[in-house]
Amino acid sequence: MPRYFVTIEYDGYDLVGWQRQDNGPSVQQHLEEAIFKFCAEDVRVQGAGRTDAGVHAEAQTAHFDISKDCEPRVVANAVNQHLKPAPIAILDCSIADAEFSARFSATKRHYLYRIINRRAPLALDAGRAWHVKPELDSDLMHQAAQCLVGKHDFSSFRAAQCQARSPVKTLDLLDVSRFGEEIQIRASARSFLHNQVRAMVGSLKQVGEGYWSIADLEAARDACDRQRGGQNAPPYGLYLIGVDYT
Amino acid sequence: MPRYFVTIEYDGYDLVGWQRQDNGPSVQQHLEEAIFKFCAEDVRVQGAGRTDAGVHAEAQTAHFDISKDCEPRVVANAVNQHLKPAPIAILDCSIADAEFSARFSATKRHYLYRIINRRAPLALDAGRAWHVKPELDSDLMHQAAQCLVGKHDFSSFRAAQCQARSPVKTLDLLDVSRFGEEIQIRASARSFLHNQVRAMVGSLKQVGEGYWSIADLEAARDACDRQRGGQNAPPYGLYLIGVDYT
Repeated sequence: MPRYFVTIEYDGYDLVGWQRQDNGPSVQQHLEEAIFKFCAEDVRVQGAGRTDAGVHAEAQTAHFDISKDCEPRVVANAVNQHLKPAPIAILDCSIADAEFSARFSATKRHYLYRIINRRAPLALDAGRAWHVKPELDSDLMHQAAQCLVGKHDFSSFRAAQCQARSPVKTLDLLDVSRFGEEIQIRASARSFLHNQVRAMVGSLKQVGEGYWSIADLEAARDACDRQRGGQNAPPYGLYLIGVDYT
Repeated sequence: MPRYFVTIEYDGYDLVGWQRQDNGPSVQQHLEEAIFKFCAEDVRVQGAGRTDAGVHAEAQTAHFDISKDCEPRVVANAVNQHLKPAPIAILDCSIADAEFSARFSATKRHYLYRIINRRAPLALDAGRAWHVKPELDSDLMHQAAQCLVGKHDFSSFRAAQCQARSPVKTLDLLDVSRFGEEIQIRASARSFLHNQVRAMVGSLKQVGEGYWSIADLEAARDACDRQRGGQNAPPYGLYLIGVDYT
């Protein structure tokens, strides 16, 4: 029974997230149904990151086992055909070892958060970025972000429903860069708590608007209390952009 | 009666183009209706470029006259409110002289055409770029494009319904660059014939796939016959990205 490893792109705006749910179509459900249409096998697709409703992926990764033994390219093309018209596409497909897990073998996850910082509403980027009108000081946001890098208890940036055993995580990168009116925030870690990136971005916006100092962000971090972290940034600005396995 | 000059962004995928038409909502119609809701004045908005159905704009420009005398920022904010939920936004608004015309005072128009060159279907860029599966030689496309730069009779790249008096235009720039799987084609000229950019992009794709040599493209150009030019590239890969007035 070969194990297939896939890289997936999706526009999550109209999806309920990665995981199968009762309230609407998920990426996982679309994939599992497309695989069923291809080979009449009822599989469970295991993803590297359980992205929330509205979150996008440039490069989510996942694996699944089917008894049908095909060239990976044939599998990708067929499943892509059956995925239409859902805004989901398999970018790449290969055979993996039986002990490989897209979720548990992952060594690092990379996220990008996009803010469009301008007065005018968004037309081309509606549903693809967070629209923030007040001018944000992105240099200060970057400087402040560095106090979150490293090993910390991230309870202040953790959803109530988070299932992780420990709130302690090691954040490898939190970079804030401005490109004209767009601010990009990049976050990398072995793993994240539920809503961690969105809560960190919401907190950095407080700094960028001048409501919080860097010391305020440090105090929020040290409080280990979700009430002290910033509001979650909206999901549709967030992109899972890569997963490492080395 | 002040004349307002505006810069406009839109996602043209579900619009019938810039110009008012009977078959669906146009950018012009949306703008004129939003202006009417703001000041109860029936105006005609004059645009710099009459983009086709499906074509996007990062920076279309236009002007209109209303008797209501307001701060430009107030006009932009109010019209943007009334434009919702259409995927159209005024980015910038200023007062122009009475003799200024967004269309006739324009000295250069800049377009971008986006191709995503990969096997996998598009998820995030569906409706935002042309999906071309066979590998394109973008260096060769750029080299070939240079035979279209300069003053030429562009009849081979002109829609039958084009209303321009002469098919002779001066193309200032036609640049092809690859960024990973994305190929960007930039075209600049004082003005373009109807469908000229899309026909040039369709022809460059023939070169990139190896169906046409550079000599074939030159021969197509010199034939001055629309039957000899390439097929139009689809509209949803095209963006009006700027208009100059100096």
